[in-house]
Amino acid sequence: MPKPPFRKIGICMKSLRDQSPEPVLQLFDYLEQKGLRICLDEEATRLLGRGQPCIQGDHWPAGLDLVIVLGGDGTLLSIARNLPDPKTPILGINFGSLGFLTVIPRDQMRAMLDDLFAGRFRIEDRMRLQVEVHREGRLRESFSALNDAVINYGAFARIIDLKVFVDGQFLTNYRSDGLIVSTPTGSTAYALSAGGPILVPSTRSLILAPICPHTLTHRPIVLDGTSAILIEVAGGGNVVLTVDGQTGISLAREDQVRVRQSDQVTRLVIPEQVVFFDILRQKLKWGER
Amino acid sequence: MPKPPFRKIGICMKSLRDQSPEPVLQLFDYLEQKGLRICLDEEATRLLGRGQPCIQGDHWPAGLDLVIVLGGDGTLLSIARNLPDPKTPILGINFGSLGFLTVIPRDQMRAMLDDLFAGRFRIEDRMRLQVEVHREGRLRESFSALNDAVINYGAFARIIDLKVFVDGQFLTNYRSDGLIVSTPTGSTAYALSAGGPILVPSTRSLILAPICPHTLTHRPIVLDGTSAILIEVAGGGNVVLTVDGQTGISLAREDQVRVRQSDQVTRLVIPEQVVFFDILRQKLKWGER
Amino acid sequence: MPKPPFRKIGICMKSLRDQSPEPVLQLFDYLEQKGLRICLDEEATRLLGRGQPCIQGDHWPAGLDLVIVLGGDGTLLSIARNLPDPKTPILGINFGSLGFLTVIPRDQMRAMLDDLFAGRFRIEDRMRLQVEVHREGRLRESFSALNDAVINYGAFARIIDLKVFVDGQFLTNYRSDGLIVSTPTGSTAYALSAGGPILVPSTRSLILAPICPHTLTHRPIVLDGTSAILIEVAGGGNVVLTVDGQTGISLAREDQVRVRQSDQVTRLVIPEQVVFFDILRQKLKWGER
Amino acid sequence: MPKPPFRKIGICMKSLRDQSPEPVLQLFDYLEQKGLRICLDEEATRLLGRGQPCIQGDHWPAGLDLVIVLGGDGTLLSIARNLPDPKTPILGINFGSLGFLTVIPRDQMRAMLDDLFAGRFRIEDRMRLQVEVHREGRLRESFSALNDAVINYGAFARIIDLKVFVDGQFLTNYRSDGLIVSTPTGSTAYALSAGGPILVPSTRSLILAPICPHTLTHRPIVLDGTSAILIEVAGGGNVVLTVDGQTGISLAREDQVRVRQSDQVTRLVIPEQVVFFDILRQKLKWGER
Repeated sequence: MPKPPFRKIGICMKSLRDQSPEPVLQLFDYLEQKGLRICLDEEATRLLGRGQPCIQGDHWPAGLDLVIVLGGDGTLLSIARNLPDPKTPILGINFGSLGFLTVIPRDQMRAMLDDLFAGRFRIEDRMRLQVEVHREGRLRESFSALNDAVINYGAFARIIDLKVFVDGQFLTNYRSDGLIVSTPTGSTAYALSAGGPILVPSTRSLILAPICPHTLTHRPIVLDGTSAILIEVAGGGNVVLTVDGQTGISLAREDQVRVRQSDQVTRLVIPEQVVFFDILRQKLKWGER
Repeated sequence: MPKPPFRKIGICMKSLRDQSPEPVLQLFDYLEQKGLRICLDEEATRLLGRGQPCIQGDHWPAGLDLVIVLGGDGTLLSIARNLPDPKTPILGINFGSLGFLTVIPRDQMRAMLDDLFAGRFRIEDRMRLQVEVHREGRLRESFSALNDAVINYGAFARIIDLKVFVDGQFLTNYRSDGLIVSTPTGSTAYALSAGGPILVPSTRSLILAPICPHTLTHRPIVLDGTSAILIEVAGGGNVVLTVDGQTGISLAREDQVRVRQSDQVTRLVIPEQVVFFDILRQKLKWGER
Repeated sequence: MPKPPFRKIGICMKSLRDQSPEPVLQLFDYLEQKGLRICLDEEATRLLGRGQPCIQGDHWPAGLDLVIVLGGDGTLLSIARNLPDPKTPILGINFGSLGFLTVIPRDQMRAMLDDLFAGRFRIEDRMRLQVEVHREGRLRESFSALNDAVINYGAFARIIDLKVFVDGQFLTNYRSDGLIVSTPTGSTAYALSAGGPILVPSTRSLILAPICPHTLTHRPIVLDGTSAILIEVAGGGNVVLTVDGQTGISLAREDQVRVRQSDQVTRLVIPEQVVFFDILRQKLKWGER
Repeated sequence: MPKPPFRKIGICMKSLRDQSPEPVLQLFDYLEQKGLRICLDEEATRLLGRGQPCIQGDHWPAGLDLVIVLGGDGTLLSIARNLPDPKTPILGINFGSLGFLTVIPRDQMRAMLDDLFAGRFRIEDRMRLQVEVHREGRLRESFSALNDAVINYGAFARIIDLKVFVDGQFLTNYRSDGLIVSTPTGSTAYALSAGGPILVPSTRSLILAPICPHTLTHRPIVLDGTSAILIEVAGGGNVVLTVDGQTGISLAREDQVRVRQSDQVTRLVIPEQVVFFDILRQKLKWGER
């Protein structure tokens, strides 16, 4: 497919104490020299020290061709969840070194931006989850996730009981610290710490990974991406749902959490030279020995 | 899709010492009463104690609508690999209790055969692997697998070095006891013992699971089913390739093992009341505790 | 060593709704027929339906030779932690089937009590932990544990940072869901779900097991029982300490949790025919296949 | 205890192709300048290029106060197993960077030798295993191990059945790729790859770690160091015993492998500044994130 031209570009970042304006300045200069229309959020405006923010809270301008996120994976997750037009492609520049989502390390920003504007990139459509909480037969709340939906315990509690159905068929009861429903993108996040497998981003699958299960034979399960997952809170004092590690609500007994593939995807912009396996090796420290 | 009628039926089993003729007799009587054409292999003929085998070694009659395998999963794996016409549907009746492939427990044979001939079944097309060994640039040997292709060590040896590429991209070097490439069907076999995830049979994915890796951060990886995997033997004294735990060859240094999805599938006949999750719970002893 | 005679016996149990008086009645009759002095707590008195409790809350009579706990492992943990004289031997009768601490299944109560009064038992001294919380240089709170001390996250939080020293030497930073310090007795409880090893009760060792560690190379570590462990809360929003899964407090940043072997042990009474490996096989469902 | 003086010192190394004489020359010069008596094995003599070896194959001189091993952990394991006088302290200098046994990295050799001769070192007595193979009631072969005794499969075989007793009590049947019996020293070797815990060297314990067990609830078990372990080969075609990954024999069905703590220890010389936890962090790449 033909590459989209990037003409109007938003720059987003998280508000952090002690943040250096350097990366924003460099990025701004780079884009300005190309004669592009640049649209900063409040934090980027503050750091740049001039002009007015054109992204203010939930108010975004129409017609952005690209959003550049400066920060870590957490910042990108948050912006992807709140993007007014979910079709807008996102490029992540990592302030530290390298993330699974913010794949451009800061010290390679310049070279990779050159790639970008020379058309040497691909757009990866990453599956998102639609997560609904139903209480007493009614939809109570609804979330969207790029990484995962996690049901686990709240303060001073531990074991929770969950009853899980997949496409209407009973799967099992989990007695555990919690349960993770993860996309392929989320497979390198919390699910990995809980013993889940790594899924290549292009697989259209979902992971169900119990956290510290009481029954030792429970193992992570990989389901078809089209599966409808229903998780019922069967017991446990203090249960919470967390989405992408960032937002969520408390759950009551008999609440149902329904998870399925969202109609919307997150569109990540990936420079051509960035290869998933290289990130994997570097982030997981797979060395020669 | 309309269910195929089963008119001409082959019965296959493994030659075992001390094998009771009971199940064969029951099955034969059942099918004979239905007026079906029955075709026995040598072992079934021997146990039945009359007639002539119409399946002799590699010589199979044409036009079988169904092959019924009596035995464990190993027997079914072996017959599926050697079936002259891979499109022939296979039904497995387990002599013990229940297998992942031989899904009919012996004590439910009668009821499930009734289901079968009443059309209450589905046919699952299970992905197979094509496994090629290349030596010095030439194809040396080629195998087909329903569960897995395993590269591991031979006698009095242990750590082997493998260099793995996926779709031409370098994935990693594994320094380990070995490496398993598994289909979704094989995910509940050896790959599970090696710490791999369970894949629902319908996922079109492949698992790469290292066995006792030397680097502690290696984790099982789930790849797209369309991936072309190339494994190069980079070191280790005594390396062997085993296919479905049953056949294989010794590998030399620099040999390449190439694994990809086969054009052929194994077509499993599954009675309607048999649900994958139920097998999982029963086989893995997921109980109420 | 000579077996102690059991003359004055306390009976303790947890207050539960819908609890049947049967086991208490049977036990009471059994002991009464032996002419022993019996001392009931409030719940046992209530169920028996006559007499006055001689164990009331924290008020225990002096001179008990044995405490019999009716209930699950959780009940025994709680009573062991609150026993006025920690040297009092404890016998656990499980209301369900079998526990790691309450080793007498209800349906074998009679036979095992016969064993007990015939001297066919041993007393196992089980290591306890002394757990201290220090804040700003001062001891803030102190706990005693038979199973484990767990530092993990509270509500709507997850990753916490802990800095750990053993005998004054820096061990590592854990970035994880939490950290378990377990006795050998606790090795079959939470630590096992978190991937820890099973320790035979007689080993004099401690387990440090991280929960869902962020760094994939972290593994459970077994330390000498004499080690002094210092855990400093280095980060994470909402951190709690839980002791034996039952009691605990919130921790603040820079709080130090110091864990070491307690001077006191819990003395479990184990009928001779009860073997740890048998419990292990039964509880973990280690079958023939 | 007072530190022993090191006056007569043996230098041992493995014969390797393309080995540089540099480290031997440096070491020889260092020791010669101190006026010590130096005793080289054949390989060291060859590399030094002068004199006669005073350690020839199994012929060692009497009265060595210290053996310095140049090489990796494998070299040290081999020399420790073959040392005529097992009480001789061993110091390991790693040719590469750092080992769990050869704790002196080559680039710190000089400074750590200064420490050594200034008395800034400790001697750690490391538990060894005595491993006996009994066939038809008779002792067939006997081995000594510093790391581990491993029973696993030979070529073109996989699942083996082992029946294990500890101190005469039945533990369990393992159906697996094999079983590792490891010392604390061996806990960072093969047992770690098989999912075993790390044991601090001073713990007096043994690890039993199954390799890819068929039953998913099997977990590594830590036993008292004084335990007598009996492993019976109950099935599997092609079973071998390997000791320290270096030597071993084929086992027949019904062979018994008996493992217990050896009367002899290996005495490792460790410079004072070398801390086990530091090695752990460095070797396992426990970083800040």
